Amino acid sequence: MKVQDWFPIWDELTGEHQERIRNSLIRRRIEAGTVIHNGSADCAGLLLVESGRLRAYILSDGGREITLYRLFDRDICLFSASCMLRSLQFDVTIQAEKDTELWVIPTEIYQRIMAQSAPLSNYTNEIMAARFSEVMWLLEQVMWKSMDRRVAGFLLEEAAIEDGNRLSITHEAIANHLGTHREVVTRMLRYLQGEGLVKLSRGAVELLDEKRLEELSRT
Amino acid sequence: MKVQDWFPIWDELTGEHQERIRNSLIRRRIEAGTVIHNGSADCAGLLLVESGRLRAYILSDGGREITLYRLFDRDICLFSASCMLRSLQFDVTIQAEKDTELWVIPTEIYQRIMAQSAPLSNYTNEIMAARFSEVMWLLEQVMWKSMDRRVAGFLLEEAAIEDGNRLSITHEAIANHLGTHREVVTRMLRYLQGEGLVKLSRGAVELLDEKRLEELSRT
Repeated sequence: MKVQDWFPIWDELTGEHQERIRNSLIRRRIEAGTVIHNGSADCAGLLLVESGRLRAYILSDGGREITLYRLFDRDICLFSASCMLRSLQFDVTIQAEKDTELWVIPTEIYQRIMAQSAPLSNYTNEIMAARFSEVMWLLEQVMWKSMDRRVAGFLLEEAAIEDGNRLSITHEAIANHLGTHREVVTRMLRYLQGEGLVKLSRGAVELLDEKRLEELSRT
Repeated sequence: MKVQDWFPIWDELTGEHQERIRNSLIRRRIEAGTVIHNGSADCAGLLLVESGRLRAYILSDGGREITLYRLFDRDICLFSASCMLRSLQFDVTIQAEKDTELWVIPTEIYQRIMAQSAPLSNYTNEIMAARFSEVMWLLEQVMWKSMDRRVAGFLLEEAAIEDGNRLSITHEAIANHLGTHREVVTRMLRYLQGEGLVKLSRGAVELLDEKRLEELSRT
């Protein structure tokens, strides 16, 4: 993949800016489970995901987690360069969910070009708007949806991402995605099992009836 | 107030762009209670608040509300021009909480200048980052804080905004700010009254002990 694959506005950049971005790229290979970015403590740069998967989440003081969104091939991670936006005042943690290959554009280089380039700045705006929209979707889920519907929606999302009906995932991990306690997830999954929608086994959840899970998650 | 009061980057705009913004300004006077912007249905333009107060909130299908943030003098409302960002995929409602005087910059004019002007685009980025930060703060409140703490925090915020300890506000209105039911708010307020932190009367809440409310809201 080439760097222009991440920037639909590549041709609107000046030759000099293109060159500076190309020369700044650093390739990194991240092992599954590694925390790449930890709150406001570091500001490594923009991450261009070539393959793998990243998860952005927030942590409570008590150590609870909730997933904000995931990043896949061709996605750009902006919050690993959050220090370039003075008004961005919150801490996000970014973790590799799978082995991930990515390119880094160092923050100061990106920021300097963005200060001069309207196309790059407007494109950055669009990336932020997309992440903002995902967080708003999450807020609506948390506010208005009961946990059984959220668990059903999460299982369907996972099945789509993994392209299979048998998910190797613990109740603890599901709880960390949804920002709740393991016990709550276990109760919901048992309810779904009782209804014949899923089948539970050690460290795995099998989806038996996607249609009804879909109906449940939509209500 | 002059238009440059809203744009710290005013001097970085070209003379032509300054002129175009100045000539496009429309003055509006909004009565308290008026809904100015309703989801993705309209896209009137950027609102520059001169005096008064706006409230941005979301609505559930069932008609429940939760306040995202408020806008005061010198604030810019971006989401009333949300159509200019393709990736902004959520519906926010904007309502005047008080009689409000504001200026409107029509969306298409702002968008055309932003497409050419790196300073204006970067500044727009900062405004969006600021709103994003407020929503993240809210998400953290909703996720990790119990309702008694949120009610305490809300009362203190209102007292600061209104600059007084006696708030003319109904339990219903507090519930709509916090995204919960009136009954829940009534129960919390009675609990706070029992603890000697507030005094309740018809359509009003009086703060009796700001120090302890502060302590409660912080835990």
